[in-house]
Amino acid sequence: MDSISIHKKLRGKIFIGGKTNINTIEDLSTLYTPGVADPCKEIARDKSLVYDYTMKGNTVMIVTDGSRVLGLGDIGPEAALPVMEGKALIMQQFAGLDAFPICLNEKNPDKIVEIIKALSPGFGAINLEDISTPKVFHIEKRLTEELDIPIFHDDQHGTAMVTLAGLYNALKVTGKNKNIKIGIVGAGSAGYAIAKLLFAAGFQNIVVFDSKSAIHKNRNLDGYKRELSELNSLDYEGTISEFHGADVIISAAKPGALPFETIKAMKKPNIVFTLSNPISELSLEQARELDIDVFGTGRSDYPNQINNSVCFPGFLKTLLDLRITKITDEMKIAAAKGIAETINPTKEKIIPDAFNKDVIQNIYKRVKSSF
Amino acid sequence: MDSISIHKKLRGKIFIGGKTNINTIEDLSTLYTPGVADPCKEIARDKSLVYDYTMKGNTVMIVTDGSRVLGLGDIGPEAALPVMEGKALIMQQFAGLDAFPICLNEKNPDKIVEIIKALSPGFGAINLEDISTPKVFHIEKRLTEELDIPIFHDDQHGTAMVTLAGLYNALKVTGKNKNIKIGIVGAGSAGYAIAKLLFAAGFQNIVVFDSKSAIHKNRNLDGYKRELSELNSLDYEGTISEFHGADVIISAAKPGALPFETIKAMKKPNIVFTLSNPISELSLEQARELDIDVFGTGRSDYPNQINNSVCFPGFLKTLLDLRITKITDEMKIAAAKGIAETINPTKEKIIPDAFNKDVIQNIYKRVKSSF
Repeated sequence: MDSISIHKKLRGKIFIGGKTNINTIEDLSTLYTPGVADPCKEIARDKSLVYDYTMKGNTVMIVTDGSRVLGLGDIGPEAALPVMEGKALIMQQFAGLDAFPICLNEKNPDKIVEIIKALSPGFGAINLEDISTPKVFHIEKRLTEELDIPIFHDDQHGTAMVTLAGLYNALKVTGKNKNIKIGIVGAGSAGYAIAKLLFAAGFQNIVVFDSKSAIHKNRNLDGYKRELSELNSLDYEGTISEFHGADVIISAAKPGALPFETIKAMKKPNIVFTLSNPISELSLEQARELDIDVFGTGRSDYPNQINNSVCFPGFLKTLLDLRITKITDEMKIAAAKGIAETINPTKEKIIPDAFNKDVIQNIYKRVKSSF
Repeated sequence: MDSISIHKKLRGKIFIGGKTNINTIEDLSTLYTPGVADPCKEIARDKSLVYDYTMKGNTVMIVTDGSRVLGLGDIGPEAALPVMEGKALIMQQFAGLDAFPICLNEKNPDKIVEIIKALSPGFGAINLEDISTPKVFHIEKRLTEELDIPIFHDDQHGTAMVTLAGLYNALKVTGKNKNIKIGIVGAGSAGYAIAKLLFAAGFQNIVVFDSKSAIHKNRNLDGYKRELSELNSLDYEGTISEFHGADVIISAAKPGALPFETIKAMKKPNIVFTLSNPISELSLEQARELDIDVFGTGRSDYPNQINNSVCFPGFLKTLLDLRITKITDEMKIAAAKGIAETINPTKEKIIPDAFNKDVIQNIYKRVKSSF
C-alpha cells in the first residue's frame, strides 16, 4: 500500500494503551481516586520516586517545531506530525520505548527551550527532531545545561554515531587506522556533529567544508563554525575540488556539493559516505565507475545504509535504563563501537541493519562500561 | 494489591503502542522516510488534512500544573503524574481515546496558556485538570477564545454535567420540576460550574454560598463571583444556616460547610448531593438520620456516586468524533440528559455507573442532535 493510503487508513501510527484493565470499582479506586493519592504523596515527598511510580522512566519526548522536516524545509508543526509519529513507532517497535510526538507551534528558540523545560517532568529523555540549524544547537545547549534528563538531537548525534560505527568497520575492511585524512562536506547539524565526534574519537586530520571552502581559522568565523575550524589541524584552506589525497570523504550536504575530481584524487583504498536522503549524492553505478572501495549512503535499497534507525532506539533505551542525565562523547563513541561490533564487516556490509536484534544489547553493554 | 504496590509494579499505567508493525525495509520506507514525506506534503498544503493522516483526531491532552491535585493541594507536576495517567487510562478503557498526560513545571497562567497553545497542533482536545481556582478560569477562557479545538475542564464541566444528570433523575423520582429552590455550597471550580450549568438548563432559583454567606449583588464582588451573584434571583443575602425551604442542596465545598439545620429545614421530598471526595461531608448513616430522600455523594461505596468518570470519557470522545471546536452549554445539557436517560432511576440509583456501556452512545446521540 502507498504511504498516503496507509496513513489515511491508520489515522495515527501509534496509540495509547492501558498496561492494566479497569474492570471493577475497586480497580478504579486503586488506579485512580482515592488510591492514587498514595503514590502522589510519596512523589511529593521525594521527587525522584517519579521514576518508580510513573511512566517517566521509559518515556521519550520527540519534539519539533517543524522548521526543517526531512528535506522538505519549514512545513510547520502539523505537517511534521507524520514524521514524529513514525519515529515514535520505530522507538516502540525496536526498543519498547514509550515515545510521544510533540509538534510545537512556536519558532523562537528560547521560547522552545522554556516550553520543553516546562514539559520535562513527565519525560525521561528529550529527542530534538527536525529543528533548523543553527537554532537547534542553541536549544540543545541550553536544555543540556538546564535539565537533568538527557537531550538527544538525532540529526546530530544519531547521524554521527552511525557514521562513526560505519567508519570503524570501513577502516577494518580496508586495513587502515586512525592516521587518515578525512574530508567532511557540509556544515549543518550532521556535518558538525560528525566532525566533532570523529575528533573526540581520536581522528585528527579532519577538514570540514561549507559551500565556500574549507572551514579554517583565517576565515574569521564565529559560533559553531569557529569550533569546526579548530578541528582543521591540516591547516587546509582551499576548496573541496582541490582537496587531494583523502582517505575518507563524508558528504552530509545536499547533492551537488561533492566533485568527482575530489573522489578521483583520494588515496586508495578509499571510503566515501554520501548521507543525503532520499536522493543519494552518488548512485551505485557512479560509485562503481569511480572505483570507490567502501561506499555508504542513506538509501535503504543500496548496500551500507548509514541510517539513524540502527542507533537511536537502542541509544535512547540505554540512556533511560541507565538513568543517564547528560550524554557524553564517551557514550556516543561507545555506542558506535557497540553498533560496529554487531557484525563481521565486509565492503558491502559495514553497518548492521535496523532489524538486527543484537544492536540494542551491544549499545547497552558498551555504554554501560564507558563510565 | 494496594495502590503503592500496583503503581510500583506497573511503572506507568499507560504505554504507547504501534498500530502497525515494522517488519521489513519496505515498512520502514512507507511508514517513515522517504514515504512519510507524502502525507507531510499533503498536510503542508492543507492543514485540515492532519485529521486524516495523523493521531490528532483521537488524541486528548490531559494537562495540569499540579497546583490543586485531588484534595492534596499544590504537590507539583511530578506528583500529579499518577493522577493524570489514571485519567488517561480511564479515557482509553472507557472510550478508546488516546490521552496523554502533560505535567507542567510552570505556574503562571498566561505562560501555561502559551505552552498549551504551542502544543496544540498534535491534539484534538484539551482536558485541563487539577489546576487551582481562579487561575484555571482564566486559562480556560483564553484557550477557548484562541484555539480551534475544544477546551474541557473536567473539575468544572464534568462535575456540572454529572450533577445535572443526577438532578434530572432525582427530580424524576421525587416528582418535582424545575420550579425549585436550590442551594449550592462552595464557590470553587465545581460550585461555579454547577450553578452556571443549572441556570443554563432552566433552573432559576439558585443561591451559591461561599464561606461567608450567600453570593449576592450587594456584596460588591468581582470576577466569577460577580457572575454567580447574578444567578441569585431569590435575592437571598443570608448565611447557609438560615437558608430554609430548599428543595435541593448541593455541597461542593470541603466537609464542614453544610449545617445540619439547613438540611432539616428543607422542603420534602428533598435532594442532597455532597460531592467532596474521598471524604463525604455526610455519611450514609447521617443522611438516613436526617431523612434525606435522595442522597448522592462522590464515594464509590455509597449509592448514587456522582462521579465524573461516567461523563468525561464519553463527552470527550463525542467532541472528537463530531470534531467540535467549542463546547457550548447546550452540549453539556444534552450530555447530562444522555447520561440520565441511560437508566430507569430509583432513589438509590440516579446515576449510571462508569462501567455502563450505553452511556457513551447516549451522550453521543444527545450531543449530536443538540446543534
